[in-house]
Amino acid sequence: MAVRVGVLGATGAVGQRLIQLLDPHPDFEIAALTASEDSAGKSYRQAAKWRVEGPIPEDVAETTVSATDPDEVPDDIDLIFSSLPSSVGSEVEPAFCEAGYVMSSNSSNARMADDVPLVIPEVNADHLDLLEVQRDERGWDGAMVKNPNCSTITFVPTLAALAEYGLEKVHVATLQAVSGAGYDGVSSMEIIDNAIPYIGSEEDKLETESRKLLGEFDGAELSHNSVEVAASCNRIPTIDGHLENVWVETAEELSAEGAADAMASYPSLELRSSPDQLIHVFDEPDRPQPRLDRSLGDGMAVAAGGLRESSFGLQYNCLAHNTIRGAAGASVLNGELLLENGYL
Amino acid sequence: MAVRVGVLGATGAVGQRLIQLLDPHPDFEIAALTASEDSAGKSYRQAAKWRVEGPIPEDVAETTVSATDPDEVPDDIDLIFSSLPSSVGSEVEPAFCEAGYVMSSNSSNARMADDVPLVIPEVNADHLDLLEVQRDERGWDGAMVKNPNCSTITFVPTLAALAEYGLEKVHVATLQAVSGAGYDGVSSMEIIDNAIPYIGSEEDKLETESRKLLGEFDGAELSHNSVEVAASCNRIPTIDGHLENVWVETAEELSAEGAADAMASYPSLELRSSPDQLIHVFDEPDRPQPRLDRSLGDGMAVAAGGLRESSFGLQYNCLAHNTIRGAAGASVLNGELLLENGYL
Amino acid sequence: MAVRVGVLGATGAVGQRLIQLLDPHPDFEIAALTASEDSAGKSYRQAAKWRVEGPIPEDVAETTVSATDPDEVPDDIDLIFSSLPSSVGSEVEPAFCEAGYVMSSNSSNARMADDVPLVIPEVNADHLDLLEVQRDERGWDGAMVKNPNCSTITFVPTLAALAEYGLEKVHVATLQAVSGAGYDGVSSMEIIDNAIPYIGSEEDKLETESRKLLGEFDGAELSHNSVEVAASCNRIPTIDGHLENVWVETAEELSAEGAADAMASYPSLELRSSPDQLIHVFDEPDRPQPRLDRSLGDGMAVAAGGLRESSFGLQYNCLAHNTIRGAAGASVLNGELLLENGYL
Amino acid sequence: MAVRVGVLGATGAVGQRLIQLLDPHPDFEIAALTASEDSAGKSYRQAAKWRVEGPIPEDVAETTVSATDPDEVPDDIDLIFSSLPSSVGSEVEPAFCEAGYVMSSNSSNARMADDVPLVIPEVNADHLDLLEVQRDERGWDGAMVKNPNCSTITFVPTLAALAEYGLEKVHVATLQAVSGAGYDGVSSMEIIDNAIPYIGSEEDKLETESRKLLGEFDGAELSHNSVEVAASCNRIPTIDGHLENVWVETAEELSAEGAADAMASYPSLELRSSPDQLIHVFDEPDRPQPRLDRSLGDGMAVAAGGLRESSFGLQYNCLAHNTIRGAAGASVLNGELLLENGYL
Repeated sequence: MAVRVGVLGATGAVGQRLIQLLDPHPDFEIAALTASEDSAGKSYRQAAKWRVEGPIPEDVAETTVSATDPDEVPDDIDLIFSSLPSSVGSEVEPAFCEAGYVMSSNSSNARMADDVPLVIPEVNADHLDLLEVQRDERGWDGAMVKNPNCSTITFVPTLAALAEYGLEKVHVATLQAVSGAGYDGVSSMEIIDNAIPYIGSEEDKLETESRKLLGEFDGAELSHNSVEVAASCNRIPTIDGHLENVWVETAEELSAEGAADAMASYPSLELRSSPDQLIHVFDEPDRPQPRLDRSLGDGMAVAAGGLRESSFGLQYNCLAHNTIRGAAGASVLNGELLLENGYL
Repeated sequence: MAVRVGVLGATGAVGQRLIQLLDPHPDFEIAALTASEDSAGKSYRQAAKWRVEGPIPEDVAETTVSATDPDEVPDDIDLIFSSLPSSVGSEVEPAFCEAGYVMSSNSSNARMADDVPLVIPEVNADHLDLLEVQRDERGWDGAMVKNPNCSTITFVPTLAALAEYGLEKVHVATLQAVSGAGYDGVSSMEIIDNAIPYIGSEEDKLETESRKLLGEFDGAELSHNSVEVAASCNRIPTIDGHLENVWVETAEELSAEGAADAMASYPSLELRSSPDQLIHVFDEPDRPQPRLDRSLGDGMAVAAGGLRESSFGLQYNCLAHNTIRGAAGASVLNGELLLENGYL
Repeated sequence: MAVRVGVLGATGAVGQRLIQLLDPHPDFEIAALTASEDSAGKSYRQAAKWRVEGPIPEDVAETTVSATDPDEVPDDIDLIFSSLPSSVGSEVEPAFCEAGYVMSSNSSNARMADDVPLVIPEVNADHLDLLEVQRDERGWDGAMVKNPNCSTITFVPTLAALAEYGLEKVHVATLQAVSGAGYDGVSSMEIIDNAIPYIGSEEDKLETESRKLLGEFDGAELSHNSVEVAASCNRIPTIDGHLENVWVETAEELSAEGAADAMASYPSLELRSSPDQLIHVFDEPDRPQPRLDRSLGDGMAVAAGGLRESSFGLQYNCLAHNTIRGAAGASVLNGELLLENGYL
Repeated sequence: MAVRVGVLGATGAVGQRLIQLLDPHPDFEIAALTASEDSAGKSYRQAAKWRVEGPIPEDVAETTVSATDPDEVPDDIDLIFSSLPSSVGSEVEPAFCEAGYVMSSNSSNARMADDVPLVIPEVNADHLDLLEVQRDERGWDGAMVKNPNCSTITFVPTLAALAEYGLEKVHVATLQAVSGAGYDGVSSMEIIDNAIPYIGSEEDKLETESRKLLGEFDGAELSHNSVEVAASCNRIPTIDGHLENVWVETAEELSAEGAADAMASYPSLELRSSPDQLIHVFDEPDRPQPRLDRSLGDGMAVAAGGLRESSFGLQYNCLAHNTIRGAAGASVLNGELLLENGYL
C-alpha cells in the first residue's frame, strides 16, 4: 500500500527534484501537486519550466496543479512535502498541519521553533518525537518536521561523527552552488568569472541550526549543543554541490587519522534513501570536488577529505549535493522516517 | 634616464603581465627578455603565446629572446625582474645576483631565507635593508628581493592595518582564480562547474610568509610575527582575483567599525605603481567580488568588505588581483622601491 | 558648450553602460536620468544596482531619477538616449519625439519602420537624412534614430566591407554573451556548463536589420539590400562579446585575401567614439575570441579572423562587444552623428 | 562466454570512459589495459588520474597496465578498443591488426583510408564488410574498424534520416565541449568567459567523414556521398556535449514537419548499447541543450530541435554526448557490431 503524498511548491527547483525522487519511490505515490495561484488549474507540464536532467515523468506531467491551500488538496493524502518560499511557508504550512496533514518541510520558516523537530535522520532521528510535544502544544492532528538548510546538512554529519571528542569551536567557509538559490536566484551576469562572498541569512543558519541538530532531546525538551560556530558563506559558479572548509577545535585531542576513522565509521540508516555509507572519506588531498563527488550515494552521501592537523585543531573539507542531500532528498528521508516511526 | 630592466621567464603568464606593466612604465625600459632554451633566438612574438588582453607592445614583439643565463644578458641592465618557475629560479637567480645584478623576484624559491627580504612596500618597506646583510653574507654585488605569494599579498595588508590591536589567531579560506596557476596550470575539465579544495604548498605559504612580512627588522636580524595562521585554499572557476574569507582574533578588542577605519586609513606610498588608496573598504556586504573589484587602483589595490563581529572576533573578506598586485605588479613595485632607496 | 543629454531606462544594463560612456564624454553632459515609476525620486545610487566594473561616477550617483515621461524631463535637454525595454519604448519614445526631443535609441521597437533611420555611422551614415522624411510624415519637432541589435552590429560591418563583391547569401551562427539579455535575462542555472540554441526574435533581427542597414537611401525612400540571410542564434556562458561564424556567397569571386584587405581597409569615421580602425583582421586562425578581443578600440571596434575559402564561398568569424559597440556605444555614436550633422 | 577485451590508451579521457562502459558490460570482460611506457607495470589506479564521475571499478583499479605493444598483450584477447592519440595510433594500431587482433578504434588515423570501414552502426552497418577487402589487401588476420570524430557523429545521424530527400548542401556550426580535447586539451585560462572559433583539423573531419559515412558500399568499393559540407567549429565552456547548428539544402522539398518525422522515426538497432530511440526530436525551440540533454539514452542518443524552414532550406540544431556517443560509446557499439556480425 503506497503512501499518498502531496508536494507544496511543486514547480520550483526543489519541487522538481522532489518529483524526480518521489516518482520512482517504492513507498510513495504522488497524489497532489500545488503551486501559486497563477499555476492552479494548469497541467504540471504547463505550469513548471522543467529544468532537471531527463524528461518530466509522464504521469506527473499531466497532473493538474492546484493552489497551495488545504481545501484544494484531497483529504486522503498521507504525507505532505513542502518546498515553499519561507514567506509563503510560514503562513500556509501551519494551516495544513492544523487541517490534519503530516508534513516534511524543506522551507526555512519555523526551523528554529522549540517544538519543531529539525532532523537529519542519521544524526538525530530521536528528535522526531518532539512531534508529541508539538501536537500537545499546538493542538494539531497533523505534524511538521523540518530538514535543515543545504549548507548546514553538508557539515553537520561530519561534526556529529566527531562529537564524542567534545566540539568546542568551528570555523566554516562555504563554496556554494548556484542551484541553492533556486532557478532565478543568481543571474549569470553576477556569477560567471566571479564569486560572491555573501548569501543573505545563510551564515546564521549554519551557526544556529547546527547547534539544534547536535543538541539533546530528553523526551520533553531539546537543549542545543554548546559548540560555537562562525561561518563565512560564498556563492561560486558551480551548478550543484556545496563544498565547505572546516576547522574544528575539540575538548579531547583529535588526530587526522582518528577523525577519518570516526567519519568513515559513522553509521547510516536502513531508510530507503539513506546511502550505504553516510560519509565517504577521501585520502586524495584534492577531494571531494563538487562535480566529481556530489553524486556519491545517489546524491545522499556526504564526502570528506583533506583531513589534517592545523595550528588550531583539525581541519578538513566536506561536500554534499545541495538539492538532493541538502534539500529534496533530505525531505524525502524525513518522510521515510515519519513512515517508519508510525507517524503516517 | 630610464632604468634598463630585464625580465627572466618573460613568456609565462606573469612574464606577460610584467611586460604589460613595464612597457609603458616611465622609469623602466625593457632591455632584455629571457626564456627557456627552446625560445632563445626567437622574437618575443614567436616565443610567447600572448594571452593577455590587448596586443603585444610592438617594440617588445620584435625583441629577441635570450636564454636565462647571466652571460646572455647585457651588462648594462640595472634591474632584473624574475618570474621563473621556482625550480629554475632556485638555480638561476643566485647566479644572476652573484654576477652583480639587482633582482626583484616573484618566484617562490628563497622567500623564507633569513637574509632575503620579502617585501610588500606599503607593509614592510623597512625590511629592504636586509639586503645589506644579504650582501655581507653572500658576497654579492647584486641583490635579491622577493615579493610574497599572490594569496599572501591579498590578506597581509589587511592584517597589517589591524596589527596595532595585537594579532593572535587568523583563519583564512581562499577562493583563488585559475590564473594563479599559470596558463596551463588548471585544465578546463578540472574546474568548469567545479572547485578544488587543494593547491599544493599554498597553505604553508600563507601561514609562513605572513609572519615574515609582519615581522620586525632591527637592522641586523628579522624576527617573525607571532600570529598563528591556519589557511584552507581552494581553486574556483574565476580568471583573475583571489577572494579570501578571514577571521582574526586580536589581543585588544576590535570592533567592525574600528577595523574598517584602520583599513581605510592604512597609508599607501608615493611609488609609481602604488594605488592612491591601498585598501578599499566596501559597505555593501556582498563586495568585494573578483570580477567587479579586481581592477581597483589598476589592479594594485586591495579590497575589503563584509566586516562583522563573529563569535571569535573579527570576520571579513578581502580581494586582490592575483597576477597584478599579487605577482607582476608586486615585483614592479619592489623594483620601484629598490630605485627609490638607491639600490640601482 | 556641452550638449545636455538625458538617459531613458538609466538603471538597466545598457543604461549603466551609457552612463559609463557619457560621464567622461567631452561633448555630452548628463542632465536627466529616467527609470520606472518605482525608482522615480530616488538618487541614482539607490535606484540602480550598479554592476559595471568600477564605481558609479560620483555626480551621477547623487542625481535624482525621474519617471520616464516627457513632462518629467527638463526642456533644455538637447538629446535623449533611450535603452528602454521595447514594450515600454514603443509607447514612450514617440511621446518624447512629439514633445520635441531628438533621440538616439537602442530599443528594438520601430527599428524596421520605413521612416526610422537604422544607423551604424561607419556603414550607412547617409541614412540619417531619412529623419527629414520622418519629421514630414509624423509632424515631429523631435526625431528618432535607432541603432541595430547587438548581434546585427557584429557582422554587418564585415558585410559592408564585402558589399562591392555583390552579397548574395549569408549564413551566420552566433555565440552570444549573457549580458545581451540584461542583468536578469539568463539565470546561472540555465547557462553554466551549457549553451542554449535559441534567443527569442534574435534570428529575425539579424536577417532583416542587416538588409535595411545595407540598403540604399535615395533621399526619399530606403530600399533594402537583396542579400538573403539565415541566422542561427546561441547563448553561451560568456559575459561580454558576441562571436559569429559567417559564410558569405558573393556574385563576384572573392578570395580570403581579398576579403581580409577589404575589411582591414574599410574606413572608420572621425566621430569621437569611432575606433581608429573599424575592423581588425587577425591572421591567427583562433582569433578573435570574446575575452581577449572584445575591448579592441575601447569596445567600439569589430574583429574578424579565420578567413578561408569553403565549398560555398568565403567563411570567417567576427566579434564585437555587445554592450558597447552593440548597444550603449552604438547609441552614443549615433548621438555624435546627430550632433555633427546639425540635428541638435 | 564473455568476449575478452583490451583497451589501448586506457588512462586518457576516452580510455576512462571506455572502462566505465566496459566494466559493467554483459558481453565484454576487460582483460588488458595499455598505456605509454611510463605507466607500464603500474596498477591502473596509480597510472590513471581518474577523473570520471564515480570511483574506478575495483577490479580495474588493481589491473597492471602494460605497454602498448602487441607482444605485451595476452594472445587470448578477442577484441581491442583503441583510444590512442592519432600519432601513436598510426604506428601501433596496424601492428596489432597484423598480429591478429580485431580492433574497434576511436583514433583519427586511417579513418579516411579506402579499405577501413568508418562506421556508425545505426547509419551504415553494411560498411563493416569492407573488412573483407581490408584483410585481402593487407593480409591481416586481424581487422580494424573506426568510428568517426565526435563532432561528425553528432550531425550525421540527422543527415542520414534526411538522405531520402537528396542531400545537397550542408552548413554546420559547432559549439563543442572541452572534454573533446582530452583532459589537458583546453586550459581554463583559455576558455572561462570565452569561446575559441578554431579547433585544429576539426572542420575537415566534419566535411569528409560525413561523406564517407553517408556513402554506398557495393561489396567491393565504397563511394562517398556527394553532399557538400562547410563546417565552422568552436570550443565553448561546457564540459560534455557537442551542440551543432545545421542548415540543409535538399533536392526534394523538405518541410520542418517532414524532417521531424523522418528523424523521430529513423530506426535504432538491437545492439546492447544502441538507445531505444536514436534521435529525440524536441518541440521546445530552446532544446536540445548540452547539460540537460547529453545523457539521453545513457549518452548514446542524438537530440534534435529547433526545426524550421529558412531562406535556404531546412535549419535545425542537434546534440550528442561527445565522449560517450561521440567516442567511447561509439567504439563499444562498433565492438558489439563486430561481435554480432561474427568477426570475433
